[in-house]
Amino acid sequence: MTPHATRELRWPEATAVADLAAMRTAAPLVHCLTNIVAASITANVLLAIGAVPAMVNAPEEAAMFASVAGALLVNLGTVTEAGAEAMRAAARSADAAGQPWVLDPVAVGGLPLRDRVAAELLQWRPVIIRGNASEILALAGAALGGKGPDSTAGSEQAVEAARGLAQRTGAVVAVSGVVDYVTDGTAVVAVRGGHALMTKVTGVGCALGATMAAFAAAQPDRLRAAVSASAMYAAAGERAARDASRPGSFAPAFLDHLYAIGLAD
Amino acid sequence: MTPHATRELRWPEATAVADLAAMRTAAPLVHCLTNIVAASITANVLLAIGAVPAMVNAPEEAAMFASVAGALLVNLGTVTEAGAEAMRAAARSADAAGQPWVLDPVAVGGLPLRDRVAAELLQWRPVIIRGNASEILALAGAALGGKGPDSTAGSEQAVEAARGLAQRTGAVVAVSGVVDYVTDGTAVVAVRGGHALMTKVTGVGCALGATMAAFAAAQPDRLRAAVSASAMYAAAGERAARDASRPGSFAPAFLDHLYAIGLAD
Amino acid sequence: MTPHATRELRWPEATAVADLAAMRTAAPLVHCLTNIVAASITANVLLAIGAVPAMVNAPEEAAMFASVAGALLVNLGTVTEAGAEAMRAAARSADAAGQPWVLDPVAVGGLPLRDRVAAELLQWRPVIIRGNASEILALAGAALGGKGPDSTAGSEQAVEAARGLAQRTGAVVAVSGVVDYVTDGTAVVAVRGGHALMTKVTGVGCALGATMAAFAAAQPDRLRAAVSASAMYAAAGERAARDASRPGSFAPAFLDHLYAIGLAD
Repeated sequence: MTPHATRELRWPEATAVADLAAMRTAAPLVHCLTNIVAASITANVLLAIGAVPAMVNAPEEAAMFASVAGALLVNLGTVTEAGAEAMRAAARSADAAGQPWVLDPVAVGGLPLRDRVAAELLQWRPVIIRGNASEILALAGAALGGKGPDSTAGSEQAVEAARGLAQRTGAVVAVSGVVDYVTDGTAVVAVRGGHALMTKVTGVGCALGATMAAFAAAQPDRLRAAVSASAMYAAAGERAARDASRPGSFAPAFLDHLYAIGLAD
Repeated sequence: MTPHATRELRWPEATAVADLAAMRTAAPLVHCLTNIVAASITANVLLAIGAVPAMVNAPEEAAMFASVAGALLVNLGTVTEAGAEAMRAAARSADAAGQPWVLDPVAVGGLPLRDRVAAELLQWRPVIIRGNASEILALAGAALGGKGPDSTAGSEQAVEAARGLAQRTGAVVAVSGVVDYVTDGTAVVAVRGGHALMTKVTGVGCALGATMAAFAAAQPDRLRAAVSASAMYAAAGERAARDASRPGSFAPAFLDHLYAIGLAD
Repeated sequence: MTPHATRELRWPEATAVADLAAMRTAAPLVHCLTNIVAASITANVLLAIGAVPAMVNAPEEAAMFASVAGALLVNLGTVTEAGAEAMRAAARSADAAGQPWVLDPVAVGGLPLRDRVAAELLQWRPVIIRGNASEILALAGAALGGKGPDSTAGSEQAVEAARGLAQRTGAVVAVSGVVDYVTDGTAVVAVRGGHALMTKVTGVGCALGATMAAFAAAQPDRLRAAVSASAMYAAAGERAARDASRPGSFAPAFLDHLYAIGLAD
């Protein structure tokens, strides 16, 4: 990470609040090709923030749907060969139609199918790539020697790799961690906040990718879309952690705060 | 909608209460071929109301299982070619065995696989078809010009299409919306109530299809089964909205009220 | 059941508390090939207890992943031919690598694909087999005449079948019910406790299989791992039922107690 290029963001910040309001007004249809574990919470997060989720995952339908939806999320969590076909069709279609799409390369780095699919998908130009440090390092080619993802890497260790990946692909790259870093290849924005309980509820990270897609549907500045989504997410997590100190009750509290945030701030 | 043929229903009504009690006594096994987003809440809704969910989705097994389950739900939300094979096998089997089954044609109207599968499935005579206005309009052939589903259509706009679809297929047709309309092709019953938060939790609508299947397993009058299921659902939604004003906390409250409703009314 | 070989267990017992602490220290990566209904709650249960869930279900990836994960769960709930391929690959790989894996033969006994797959999987030596009475009876060959699973069988009726299955396969066999019985073919441990609401939340039983896998990753005595997992589960269920009397609110309370249990006992 290059300190002189980094900007800190804390909620509420005028741009994030404005982007949330614009997204809610647009109420974008977000097409999600995601994993079987996170599908439900991803849809619930999108509903809570004011977007409209849709999962359409037959290849021929996915291609058609991706061109009419406001944004697309492709998450590789439980990708299979059949699922990958739909993902390629949808990403190609979104790119051709000029619709923004987000790639979440879950667990890339040493697992052959997803490594190959992630590399293929890059050709259809995702506007945002979101992952943890290990995934961004792997996708950027910075993970050495085929050792697979190092899940203990901190997000700050992946900032330079993220910057390089952004420059190479044209995507905004977001690295999730205790601090989230978002970069367009030049500027790096650090988003602090959130809460450790967000990592104790399955799919919360995956649903952030869908949230970024929703913001990108209404905000053509992709860096700003990804940062605003992260900032709102972190703020909702902090607020939920004030209401609930264990993961079972944290999950509904988090959805409640996503729903309420910005309405009465 | 033809006002003179419409009957209003508000909970509690003796028939709905009786149908709920009969369903709980029967505790029917409800075979669900549904989408990956709604699978979990559908099972939880069935458990809460006193039915027994089962998801068996390999084609050869689905056919066998559909003939022994008390009822079958087929929901096209995330249908794929492989999933469609299981749906056809199960619907054929349920029809041959005389078991009631419910079709939920999610997002039909302009997406080729599900449009084709929905049309095929009608030959095996679902006893209830449940959808929103756009889906019922599309399935009835009332959606013009291939524009795809108009998700902004109100349920009242689909009542005549629902009536025609019921007459053509022999199924009871239920149109979900702010007001639910249920018709057997002659009578139209309007079920009011419910709450807007029911649309902010993913799968609540899909789980209503499974609930109708559970009621149909114990109530041979299909119009009555669909209406009673809708009325109970709307009442539970209203009660949950008194306990919770945001979607994260609404979801468990809704399940709690489905579980408790009718027990101490 | 042979009373003289049965030992009762109630929480807290020193071994169960120690096994939980050891599992939390190890924080094992648990690879889950499970059904679409239970996937989310299974991951949330694993996160709550301190393990790390991962669902990787493409066959080539599943084989690779199973050899590096701390433990594997194979659950047949919504098995398809494609899913079975991944399950075989993963079980073979886990066995070859000496990693413990748990088989949950959901609904075996009269459904052809899962009956065949369950039989095949036994060759790769699961260390624990977990099921309800009907499933264990069917897998043990004790269900007669192809009548399919008798879901009303009590767990005590399957103890002898479980013992025989354990002797034949070398696995510890756990029979879930009002009382859980766990046997290595010689000793039988009865775990009492839990609460009926645990059967009213979908996937709670399936997630116990994953919990056993997590414990087995850190405790080489498989009987002890299965018993400790069951005892912790039962205790968390009892505690959650003190906080919540209906299934919607019981589910988050159960996760909360799994998260907190043992920390301040």
